[in-house]
Amino acid sequence: MKLYSYFRSSAAYRVRIALNLKGIAADYVPVHLVKPEPLPAYRDAVNPQGLVPAIEAGEDGLIAQSLAIIEYLEEKQPEPPLLPSGLAERAYVRSAALLVACDIHPLANLRVLRYLKRELGQEQATIDAWYRHWVEDGLARLEAFVAGSGRSGAFLHGDAPTMADCCLVPQLFNARRLACDLSGFPTLVEIDARCARLEAFQRAHPDVQPDAE
Amino acid sequence: MKLYSYFRSSAAYRVRIALNLKGIAADYVPVHLVKPEPLPAYRDAVNPQGLVPAIEAGEDGLIAQSLAIIEYLEEKQPEPPLLPSGLAERAYVRSAALLVACDIHPLANLRVLRYLKRELGQEQATIDAWYRHWVEDGLARLEAFVAGSGRSGAFLHGDAPTMADCCLVPQLFNARRLACDLSGFPTLVEIDARCARLEAFQRAHPDVQPDAE
Repeated sequence: MKLYSYFRSSAAYRVRIALNLKGIAADYVPVHLVKPEPLPAYRDAVNPQGLVPAIEAGEDGLIAQSLAIIEYLEEKQPEPPLLPSGLAERAYVRSAALLVACDIHPLANLRVLRYLKRELGQEQATIDAWYRHWVEDGLARLEAFVAGSGRSGAFLHGDAPTMADCCLVPQLFNARRLACDLSGFPTLVEIDARCARLEAFQRAHPDVQPDAE
Repeated sequence: MKLYSYFRSSAAYRVRIALNLKGIAADYVPVHLVKPEPLPAYRDAVNPQGLVPAIEAGEDGLIAQSLAIIEYLEEKQPEPPLLPSGLAERAYVRSAALLVACDIHPLANLRVLRYLKRELGQEQATIDAWYRHWVEDGLARLEAFVAGSGRSGAFLHGDAPTMADCCLVPQLFNARRLACDLSGFPTLVEIDARCARLEAFQRAHPDVQPDAE
């Protein structure tokens, strides 16, 4: 298996965690998202969606979109599970993962911040405020959702990491990089700290990837 | 079952299609997204994530996030399927759905356009250009992904509608409302037209919802 990744991509970080939790080895293929050349070449030759992550999964071919990849890994190799077994519990985990993937991350990623700067000519302070607005707003929703669910434990669901934790940890890593105020999210911060003690999360961290700068 | 919806919400529209395709009846509960009062009350009393859609699914409780709802419906009532059976095919369908749900829609929804207007003081023409930029960019990726996949047929996957078509049709409805140029996406436009002939899609259309204006 190959993993197309960029060390700082939040979505690629999710998949790195999932691969490590499953114990699946993948060859790391870096795609530099900041330099101008690599992305168009990758889009033409590898992934028409043109974003990372993607995996090359043998006879199953190329799979793009972090949550589609994680669902694929779950179906391909069910153990250890990244989704619980009950229908309501599975919906809860997917809902938490999608809150990060649909309501927070898309508004705070590199291509959007660049558009604000280049096309709309916004100052860095305005861009930073944009970032913090959407990340803090989304994390407040996630904190309320998790804390009110009665389903969290050591991790977002119960006492083993799931697809939802694969999304939470990269989002909090990014939030800290841009100095978001996390004081209102004690449940999320505590779960994130517990994840950080696991080797699967440590080996997925941006700082230890082959293309880390 | 109850469906919390807003007639014009693209994400709620996805779930309305899925419910109709499955033949599952749901009581329609409108949540007005434009007036100032309903959303905070809904967030406090019903859904801590604070967005539509959500379903109230009997003993399985409240489920938020359109794609988590559709996955839940698929697991609860597998027929007719909204995901194909093969692992690679399932990944393809989820990947197309997530491209819409993560890479297009979040940048073009009401709360984001409002922030551009109110907090960043942007002119309507700039906001329209923002909308069209992200929607047309994302649809170009989706067109290339689908057309190059060898997996599309009458619908995005083969000859029966899936979760991916549930996402495509609302996105194209919205794109037309804001006068996006769809001429570069012949595969998507053709599939959308085919969906529009099915009663399940017709009954989910914004114009025929109880809260349509």
